[in-house]
Formats: sequence, structure tokens, C-alpha cells
Amino acid sequence: MSEKRQQLMATAYRLFNRHGFHATGIDRIWAEAGSTKRTLYRHFPTKDALIEAVLTERDREFFALLEVRLAGASGQEARLQALFAGFADWFGRSDFYGCNFINASAEFADPRHPVRKLVVAHKQALLEWIRNELGCSVPQATGLCLLLEGAVVMAHSYQQPLALDQARQLAQTILGEAG
Amino acid sequence: MSEKRQQLMATAYRLFNRHGFHATGIDRIWAEAGSTKRTLYRHFPTKDALIEAVLTERDREFFALLEVRLAGASGQEARLQALFAGFADWFGRSDFYGCNFINASAEFADPRHPVRKLVVAHKQALLEWIRNELGCSVPQATGLCLLLEGAVVMAHSYQQPLALDQARQLAQTILGEAG
Repeated sequence: MSEKRQQLMATAYRLFNRHGFHATGIDRIWAEAGSTKRTLYRHFPTKDALIEAVLTERDREFFALLEVRLAGASGQEARLQALFAGFADWFGRSDFYGCNFINASAEFADPRHPVRKLVVAHKQALLEWIRNELGCSVPQATGLCLLLEGAVVMAHSYQQPLALDQARQLAQTILGEAG
Repeated sequence: MSEKRQQLMATAYRLFNRHGFHATGIDRIWAEAGSTKRTLYRHFPTKDALIEAVLTERDREFFALLEVRLAGASGQEARLQALFAGFADWFGRSDFYGCNFINASAEFADPRHPVRKLVVAHKQALLEWIRNELGCSVPQATGLCLLLEGAVVMAHSYQQPLALDQARQLAQTILGEAG
């Protein structure tokens, strides 16, 4: 990826997080990235194309970060703890703005919109990733996603990050049951 | 509330749900409400004031609907079932766009913003409402909120409404434990 493209995407990501997708104008993105409108449109023909590129990169980064977390952990219980530790660190970051994909759902409600399709694909990938990485059944993975998403909302909209501890305990209950 | 004001708020609510808060222009709201810019600004001096009025009305309606649901149910188990039945019906509606307050968090990230403060107040009120209406402890109510929020995200961003059944089972586990 070219440096210019990377810079535009990093700036767009930061601004989308702070202000949302629609409230962030294209002009602000290229200006704050130290670029030009011409360069931005050369890399991203439309604003939606830029949003899709940013979310695709975030999807890649999200799973890469989780994989680093789980790399040293062996056994289902240790891997579950590593997963929750990753989420705890994420919630504690000063640049935690909730889940970018939940946030994108809020602004792109139409299920036929490409951005909304990216959201559903990311979430389905998370469910599948958890099933594989924790070696559990589809209903168990669905339950874990339910708990992680609930914890994200509690941390972001309730400003109550401690709910993650409860989510972890319930996750252990789910994994303790027959898959 | 005057009929004009009600009409403007209903139109704004419908458009905010479909397109988001920032993507919905003031001009579209008064036009689709069959009103004028002048009338809109007489009722709502700023767009933020309109957003706050819409969310305040949604908060009122949300708790009123839940209260109707729980009115005939006596005992914690029956009240829990009535609560989840209410959420199931909500998820099944053709105009289900996820939680308006989670969606507002996505577009109003600054914790000092009045809209964001309304979100936190609504979510804290939900936690308190559950604690009172189900007669449970704060940790139990927090756990139930975690599960309900997770189910909302699963229904909206994963398009997987069946996770609500799992949430209900986990909720029974939580209430079965000592508060």
C-alpha cells in the first residue's frame, strides 16, 4: 500500500471514529492527511469506497490483533482468557469508540448497501473465528459473540466496562456445557 | 404536544432510523413532514435540539411499551419471559433498526455532547428499571443488560435474531444465582 493511501486511510479512520461516517467530510480528510482532493479521489473514487477500504483494513487488523493475543495460549480456557484480556485492553484505550462495525450499522441501515454487507461479513467472520480458535460449537460461538457484543455496548454506551467480567464468567458457563 | 410538533418528530424519527442522524438534513425533515423550515425552527431551535427531543420521546415510549408488557406478569420468571417476549417482537418488526441509543453513540462519540449524555442516561435508566421491575441485584441487572444489548447487536449487525433465545437462557442462569 502506498504511503499516501495509508495516510489517507489512517486520517479517515481517526475522523470516522470521532465524528461518524456522514459527519466527516471528504475535504477534512484530505486536508488533515496533508494530501489533496485529487490524490484522495485517485485512491478512492467515492466516499463509500474510502469507508469500505477503512473497514476492510480494520477487519484485517482486528483479527491480526486477536491472533497475536491467542498465539501463546493453549487449551480452550487459556484461549478464552486471552480473548477477553484482548477486549479488556481495547476497552481501556483512550481511542476506544466502540465497535466500528456496530457503528457502521447505525449509519448504513439498508441491508443492500455495500458498507452494511461488510458489517455482516465481519460479524459472521468473528463468529466463525471464535468457533475455530476456541474449538467450540456454533451455538457456543454464537453465545460468546452475544456476550462480547453486549460487553462492547456496555463499555461504550453505558460507560460500564466492568460488565466484561460478567461476560467472561457467562462465557465459561457456555463452554462448560455440552457443545 | 402540538400536532405539528408531533408530525415533525415522527418524520425525523423515521428518517434518523433509515439514514442516521447526520445524513438526514433538516430540509428533508420539514418537507416530508408537510411543514416549513420556519415551523421546524420554531419548535426546535437547532438540529441537536430536535435529535434530543426525538430520543427523549423514544426513551419515554420504550419504557411505556415495556411496562405494558410486564403489566400482567407476576413473579420474576414470568416478568423475565415477558421482557424477552417484548424484545423478540421488537426484533421482528419491519422497522427494527437496532437500538436508537446505541446508534446515537456511534454518531456522537464525545462524552460531553448532550446527545451522548442522553444515551448514558437512557442506558442507566434501563439498568435501574430492570433491577426494580425484576426485583434483582445490581450485578444481576447488569448481566441482564449485557445479554439484552448483545441480543440487539446480534439481531441488527449479525442479522441473527435467534441469539435472543440463548440470551434468555443465560438470563435465567443469572437470576438463578444468589443476587
